[in-house]
Amino acid sequence: MKIAGFDIGGANTDLAIIDYENDEIKNIEIDYAYLPMWSNNDDLSRVLIELIENICPVDEIDAVGISMTAELVDAYDTKKDGVLDIVEKCEATFNCPIGYIGINGLLTKDEILADPLQAAAANWIATAQIATLLSENCVFIDTGSTTTDIIPIKDGKECAIGKSDFDRLGTGELVYTGTLRTNLASFLDKVPLNGNEYAVASELFAQTADIYMVLDLITEDDYICDTYDGEGKSKEECARRIARVLCADLDVLSNEEIIEISKYMHQVQIKQITAGLKQVCETQNLDLVVTTGLGKNILCNEAAKLLGLKVKQMSEILTDEECILAPAIGTAMMMKK
Amino acid sequence: MKIAGFDIGGANTDLAIIDYENDEIKNIEIDYAYLPMWSNNDDLSRVLIELIENICPVDEIDAVGISMTAELVDAYDTKKDGVLDIVEKCEATFNCPIGYIGINGLLTKDEILADPLQAAAANWIATAQIATLLSENCVFIDTGSTTTDIIPIKDGKECAIGKSDFDRLGTGELVYTGTLRTNLASFLDKVPLNGNEYAVASELFAQTADIYMVLDLITEDDYICDTYDGEGKSKEECARRIARVLCADLDVLSNEEIIEISKYMHQVQIKQITAGLKQVCETQNLDLVVTTGLGKNILCNEAAKLLGLKVKQMSEILTDEECILAPAIGTAMMMKK
Repeated sequence: MKIAGFDIGGANTDLAIIDYENDEIKNIEIDYAYLPMWSNNDDLSRVLIELIENICPVDEIDAVGISMTAELVDAYDTKKDGVLDIVEKCEATFNCPIGYIGINGLLTKDEILADPLQAAAANWIATAQIATLLSENCVFIDTGSTTTDIIPIKDGKECAIGKSDFDRLGTGELVYTGTLRTNLASFLDKVPLNGNEYAVASELFAQTADIYMVLDLITEDDYICDTYDGEGKSKEECARRIARVLCADLDVLSNEEIIEISKYMHQVQIKQITAGLKQVCETQNLDLVVTTGLGKNILCNEAAKLLGLKVKQMSEILTDEECILAPAIGTAMMMKK
Repeated sequence: MKIAGFDIGGANTDLAIIDYENDEIKNIEIDYAYLPMWSNNDDLSRVLIELIENICPVDEIDAVGISMTAELVDAYDTKKDGVLDIVEKCEATFNCPIGYIGINGLLTKDEILADPLQAAAANWIATAQIATLLSENCVFIDTGSTTTDIIPIKDGKECAIGKSDFDRLGTGELVYTGTLRTNLASFLDKVPLNGNEYAVASELFAQTADIYMVLDLITEDDYICDTYDGEGKSKEECARRIARVLCADLDVLSNEEIIEISKYMHQVQIKQITAGLKQVCETQNLDLVVTTGLGKNILCNEAAKLLGLKVKQMSEILTDEECILAPAIGTAMMMKK
């Protein structure tokens, strides 16, 4: 029995296909595609099919689970509009049973149509499923390309206080910062350099992927989003974008200075995640953290270390690659139940 | 004798044509165009001509002065490349004498070719010329659509410590925040609402023009830049974009809540400018501020008030409309000398 789980994000659509034999997981296969839903959501159906067909013929799939965060993109006036459009496109794509991850568990199409917002930004519910396999009492933290989910789990159940993204921005359970797509200007106030402090340009000049390339913490293969200036992803091109954040260029700043600045920016982003993690751990009185996502080592583990928390890694039960797509895997698991 | 002064910015190109009679200013005419130089710099020549022709035939112009900040846009690898490209395009456009505003005064084409960076982001030199007409000892502050220049003037001469944009980000003389195009995520950390505090989404969801529309501080005619989502500029559409910054929408947040949030965001932006103004006033021991630009009332006067500084307005000698285009007017004045 093969179950497909999709996590349809604003920028990336992730797929996990779990092959079950006698209710046991026999094999997990994963893939993902960059699909900017703010501009290209008409391609969704085609991308869903292509992702599956890269792994197996689509008619071998017995059921499809869907979780989403793409309803937030500005192509949709309201999140409700976004959920309804995505559901409609999924229903038009598959003939097998389809389920949708909602705040309170798996939903049918009819349940979603009755209350679309239940399915908005609920993919962390799916990911939390996996974390419970590692600990019944922990804070699960997943830093992806764009955002960081911080989900408290008690007695094997997620117990997040916020249910919508809006609420979770208030509880620390969602920190809108990530490993690739985050505008450096969004979390930097001043940048120290050579004994002085510099304010930054509030433009779309460079993103976190640029600093992690320069610091050798990701590779060009990890840099799956577009660059802000449409140029390439080499370290020199990343350095040039970072310099521009200080209204400078590579005539003005040396390579050593770019690295120094990037290290500082990295630390500021760690602190941004630390603040959310602290808020959740203190509210819930939890001191074990389970980390995953593309930013697991770069950001999550460092934030947990700053707070002196115990750390387990989801990579104890999933491969590193699978960790990055944990919401899709959790979605497939929930669809099986 | 008619002198045209252009200020070629990243997003807007401004023109002032000053008509001199016996060395006295007889008339000033102004115009501007939205020209995103990061994507459309090939249109520069056409836009320069069209702007003039909207006022008078181009062959009536006796000389053209150029100041620029557009060399920073990410279409150019380095600022040097940007300056050279803009100079080449200007030279190909006009047959009359052309001068370029540089850090140390007016430059010829040959002087620029020898040292292009002198002309990078020097438009504030031109604006300072006008401020000296109001006071020999003051801090001149000009908040435009995107940035805020804070220029100290002593004994009738500008005495800024930083000469490049990079240096000026370190001295407080450039605060990269403005009345229209500034991403709200760039200056907001948390937003208080209903007794809670919410983090913000680090996306390109809403800009300062959206909050000033909602607060009735600008009109749709003032909102001359593109919206982030490509939708319209009505107050409701602006409110929808602002809601998205908190991962919310107009189903989630009421109009009163959007106004409350916008008022808070306005105050944070005032404080951002206040910090730069304080740094410059204290460094130079100056306590008179001359304010201008589109953000004169919305931001500059408020920042000066917070610091208890004396305030003069450039509108004592220029009309409100002319104040917004002060760099272009100053550029034309410098070209006359």
